[in-house]
Amino acid sequence: MSAPDGGDPRATRAALVATGEELVRGGVSDGNSAWLARRLRSFGFAVSSIRVVGDGEAAIARAVGEAIAEAAVVVVGGGLGPTEDDRTRHALAVVAGVALTEDPAAAQQVAEWFIARARQPSASNRRQALLPAGAEPLRNPRGSAPGIALAVGGATLFALPGVPAELRAMFDAEVAPRLRAIGAAAPWHERWLQVVGLPESVVGERVAEWMARTGPPYVSDNVRYGVVTLCVSDRDDAAGRERAAACIAAMRATLGDHCYAEGEESLAEHVIRRLRAASATVALAESCTGGLVAAALTEVAGASHALVEAAVTYCDAAKSRALGVPPELLATAGAVSPAVACAMAEGVRRVSGASFGLATTGIAGPDGGTEKTPVGTVHLAVAGPAGTRQVVRRYPGDRAMVRQFALHGALDLLRRALP
Amino acid sequence: MSAPDGGDPRATRAALVATGEELVRGGVSDGNSAWLARRLRSFGFAVSSIRVVGDGEAAIARAVGEAIAEAAVVVVGGGLGPTEDDRTRHALAVVAGVALTEDPAAAQQVAEWFIARARQPSASNRRQALLPAGAEPLRNPRGSAPGIALAVGGATLFALPGVPAELRAMFDAEVAPRLRAIGAAAPWHERWLQVVGLPESVVGERVAEWMARTGPPYVSDNVRYGVVTLCVSDRDDAAGRERAAACIAAMRATLGDHCYAEGEESLAEHVIRRLRAASATVALAESCTGGLVAAALTEVAGASHALVEAAVTYCDAAKSRALGVPPELLATAGAVSPAVACAMAEGVRRVSGASFGLATTGIAGPDGGTEKTPVGTVHLAVAGPAGTRQVVRRYPGDRAMVRQFALHGALDLLRRALP
Repeated sequence: MSAPDGGDPRATRAALVATGEELVRGGVSDGNSAWLARRLRSFGFAVSSIRVVGDGEAAIARAVGEAIAEAAVVVVGGGLGPTEDDRTRHALAVVAGVALTEDPAAAQQVAEWFIARARQPSASNRRQALLPAGAEPLRNPRGSAPGIALAVGGATLFALPGVPAELRAMFDAEVAPRLRAIGAAAPWHERWLQVVGLPESVVGERVAEWMARTGPPYVSDNVRYGVVTLCVSDRDDAAGRERAAACIAAMRATLGDHCYAEGEESLAEHVIRRLRAASATVALAESCTGGLVAAALTEVAGASHALVEAAVTYCDAAKSRALGVPPELLATAGAVSPAVACAMAEGVRRVSGASFGLATTGIAGPDGGTEKTPVGTVHLAVAGPAGTRQVVRRYPGDRAMVRQFALHGALDLLRRALP
Repeated sequence: MSAPDGGDPRATRAALVATGEELVRGGVSDGNSAWLARRLRSFGFAVSSIRVVGDGEAAIARAVGEAIAEAAVVVVGGGLGPTEDDRTRHALAVVAGVALTEDPAAAQQVAEWFIARARQPSASNRRQALLPAGAEPLRNPRGSAPGIALAVGGATLFALPGVPAELRAMFDAEVAPRLRAIGAAAPWHERWLQVVGLPESVVGERVAEWMARTGPPYVSDNVRYGVVTLCVSDRDDAAGRERAAACIAAMRATLGDHCYAEGEESLAEHVIRRLRAASATVALAESCTGGLVAAALTEVAGASHALVEAAVTYCDAAKSRALGVPPELLATAGAVSPAVACAMAEGVRRVSGASFGLATTGIAGPDGGTEKTPVGTVHLAVAGPAGTRQVVRRYPGDRAMVRQFALHGALDLLRRALP
């Protein structure tokens, strides 16, 4: 149960439309709508429905019409690209019953984007300047396609590019201020608690009383490979904020040091921040994660101050040459063993001169599993000023899942070793 | 343009409804619909839309009504649980205009499920035996909640539990045979063409005549950071397959060696397959991509046969120590330069003994950009038996986008160097 249900008046409702043939074909899942729903709620708009349709103009128009009928704010994602099958702008013109005309401001934006990159806009790019008559172009900070703001059927409609980075940047830069202007009912206050190292079922049991509530504060969880994000939401007034704070405090108490952060900080962002605060550095020796840990850390801006280097050593020879793991140890203990994990962590710390060395070695599958060391077995080790700590994990799922679990397991181990 | 839109008669269309407050609140993304869309297409039904709503009875009824109006088959996921806020069966009764009555067969199923587990069904569990009058219960192989099959408004509707494991098991055991009985039109035949190294707008122009078609074969595109996937779909009969093959051949001809594969092969899978076929190996020296290339290649099962090792060398010291890049070269040319990219590729090839060395160095941002070398500038180099090749790219977008573009640019450069 939750507040945003039917109970809300239309004035505080938002409806989403996601377009893209790959979405209705099952090629990919719609990842934008969950983000948009959270953002919209922070402005006081509760998403009442999400419609996912293909590239077809008729299908988009039908979905937009249905969305406008139920909500005061409609956000359409996708279909603004330069190709023939990008039909969102055409569908909006149909729904609004107006013509599609080239907008000078939009044309200017497209031109500027290409000029800034010393590239020539193609004829098809110029199609991106077409807007339904009376619509307002939205600046795209990340790409060439302008967005669209349009008042239609008593609703305010925003059309954004489907590329997640472009959609998010345009929402925050162009849509957010307009939503504030519309001024919905009292917005929702949200707080997050980030938990790592406990199964979802255990987290769920420990916070069951909160998740079962039929009145605010509402608690929902979102799980990603060993990281559980608890979201607490309540009315954005003094009483609501107080209830949310009490809920966060109570959950922190029962979850203890498995909570690594409040807010929307990712585990990688957290580790980089902690390392920089301690003027410490880390070097990585990755086997089964194959670069995932390095990729996650370097995704964080400023990671270069904390990450010295990473060595992805798949074969034994590389483990010995790059990290100084003794060949006889590899021969006796085996590459997937506590001893080799420790030797990798200590080796990369030594050769790089970093304050901490973090290592992963395991069986991600599908092949390589044995009776004694089945697929999913991962040894993690961290070497630091206080010595070396090592753990073994047995992760479920396929190759991709095991690697993602191992990524979070490794960062959790490093987190706990930091001053 | 694409098949599932207007092109399809209603008889071959399916529409999905996913219910759950957590879905519209942004707690989680809808993962069931993509799976259902793929399974339904294998039975000849093209999903024309997906509607996601909360737990509210009115919202579910509205979405189901809209879905019935557009498709011959409707699959509803979620809202069949035992609690007060599981309202799917009530909403279906409203839409069908019939009463909700306890179904003996459904009651029997619920009872058996608990008896088999030596547990007592609660009063709320018995609510799970309530069905709209005239509906047929669907056996649940994995849980206590029976599903529902219902003929309404000229459509065949199936309501399944939202728990993925239960939904999938019930679909395959109970829905699949009924779909075969309904017997949709000939299923769709699909083929893919993978394109890299051309902007989407240019790809779109070269295949514009195909994408603009209002009859089969239909062509749609899906773009991800420099990789464009063209999907060709046509009726699954001799004529349709012939049209699709001719379309693929024509697009291959106009796109030339920018097509790296047919089918659903990713660029990483392609490179690994090509390397293994040539009994060749690669080693990576990553700066701005920070492990992304290694992570992408090692995601492919069997990558260990082709990837010797990867060195993520963020700082100059690491570039010199691990790859043997001369410090004076770093001082004179700068770390982000063609010369250093080549030295990194040749260095990692030398130290690893791999057949190919692949290197990336650039400015991913947000900081580090200059007048001469703005954010988005990436130098890529591949060193191999035939010498070293180097290119410079200027990628758009934020840090995450630049890194993703650089990943695909690097793999494209390696692909073109392979025998």
